[in-house]
Amino acid sequence: MNATPQILLTNDDGILAPGLTALYEALSPVGMCTVVAPVTECSAVAHAITMRKPIRIQKSNHSFKGFGWAIDGTPADCVKFAVKKVLRSMPDLIVAGINHGANTGINTVYSGTVAGAAEGGIMNVPAFAISVASYEYDDFSTAAEFAQIIAKKILENRLPEYTFLNINVPPVPKEQIAGIRITHQGKTRYDEIFDERKDPSNNTYFWLRGERILLEHSEDSDEIAVANNYIAVTPLQCDLTNYNAMDYLRKWDISLE
Amino acid sequence: MNATPQILLTNDDGILAPGLTALYEALSPVGMCTVVAPVTECSAVAHAITMRKPIRIQKSNHSFKGFGWAIDGTPADCVKFAVKKVLRSMPDLIVAGINHGANTGINTVYSGTVAGAAEGGIMNVPAFAISVASYEYDDFSTAAEFAQIIAKKILENRLPEYTFLNINVPPVPKEQIAGIRITHQGKTRYDEIFDERKDPSNNTYFWLRGERILLEHSEDSDEIAVANNYIAVTPLQCDLTNYNAMDYLRKWDISLE
Repeated sequence: MNATPQILLTNDDGILAPGLTALYEALSPVGMCTVVAPVTECSAVAHAITMRKPIRIQKSNHSFKGFGWAIDGTPADCVKFAVKKVLRSMPDLIVAGINHGANTGINTVYSGTVAGAAEGGIMNVPAFAISVASYEYDDFSTAAEFAQIIAKKILENRLPEYTFLNINVPPVPKEQIAGIRITHQGKTRYDEIFDERKDPSNNTYFWLRGERILLEHSEDSDEIAVANNYIAVTPLQCDLTNYNAMDYLRKWDISLE
Repeated sequence: MNATPQILLTNDDGILAPGLTALYEALSPVGMCTVVAPVTECSAVAHAITMRKPIRIQKSNHSFKGFGWAIDGTPADCVKFAVKKVLRSMPDLIVAGINHGANTGINTVYSGTVAGAAEGGIMNVPAFAISVASYEYDDFSTAAEFAQIIAKKILENRLPEYTFLNINVPPVPKEQIAGIRITHQGKTRYDEIFDERKDPSNNTYFWLRGERILLEHSEDSDEIAVANNYIAVTPLQCDLTNYNAMDYLRKWDISLE
């Protein structure tokens, strides 16, 4: 490559999150990094975009030497805004993270971080999301190091069309990492719990939480790979079609009477 | 079937939306319908779930003879809440809609309505989302009629595992419907426009909108089917893995140095 690669960084933990700083520091030697991230934490916003309220922007100095744009929107908004109003062109790479908490299994679908990278997939710009697979583990160094390795690899080789990567790094020191595994999105779901409480005015409200249920135990699933201390690298795309079901449905011979 | 089927209804246009009333009326002859829907319109929330603020619930009488629960959350929240706190068991069918506006192509990924049905896919409960493919067209009658036909069909035959349907009905009178087509999610993206304005205090804000770009013209895509006045029935699932890309990535032979 001749020109300096343009790298767009975003996340869903918000512009002040230490995982984003770690990512910025790891990728600055690889290319020109521009940060456009949500002003506040917005985990579990999935692929939401802001269309019913205005979007406001702040320039943030934070630790980014003048590169940070804080958006009161979602990660998907951030990528769209960056392409149109900050970079004014497609970047060479979009990276979302480093997320605090696993984005494996069905979390993939709920994750704002993954949606940030998915915007790359939709635009056919190489992209990846990267997460440390624990809310408790605060050391982003291994994930940052891997982000740099994979960023270089993608800039050299690109990715298959409309494809982006979802990377989950086990919450252990580097010497305990068992290796890298190319994985699929594990089949999981949550058993939800609505924790019922009363506010000071005696009105009922609920907190949503859930317990994860593994629906498969394949060695190639992201969930199992991370549990076995492998870095899980899952290629994703945004076509939800179940192609195998199309013929089944054609046999129904549905008509509008 | 012997027992009365339990049908859960939700949407993303909010509990007061006429498309939801039309759906309720169409499906009440098919089973016992329970409505759990967002208190306000929340289009484009995608698969967001509410985990960083409390969730509040109101019982709504609306036109639903006492069946409506209004949630200050997303469609995905609604389905989760319904299963755990209203029905207290899995329904036989989950239906989201009737949405005002097309949920074809990449809109599938941004849609709160589709995410409501996707919760069925995740729980392995038969589900479908149904939309009238125009913001301007207010006649839900053909979509309502088709919702009843497909609901009966699904209750008879079920759906393939972890699969849900995304149905888009052209915005034309019934006699102009060309037929039913089993489709895949069309490849599209948006070219975004950030409409820049000043508020009365002279602060800048933006409205996000976009112009749709068709990236394929297959007869089997939902976009093209609807444009040709076919009702598009697309089987979806929540596994985003690009399985074809796994071998490609394995050849990269990535390591953590």
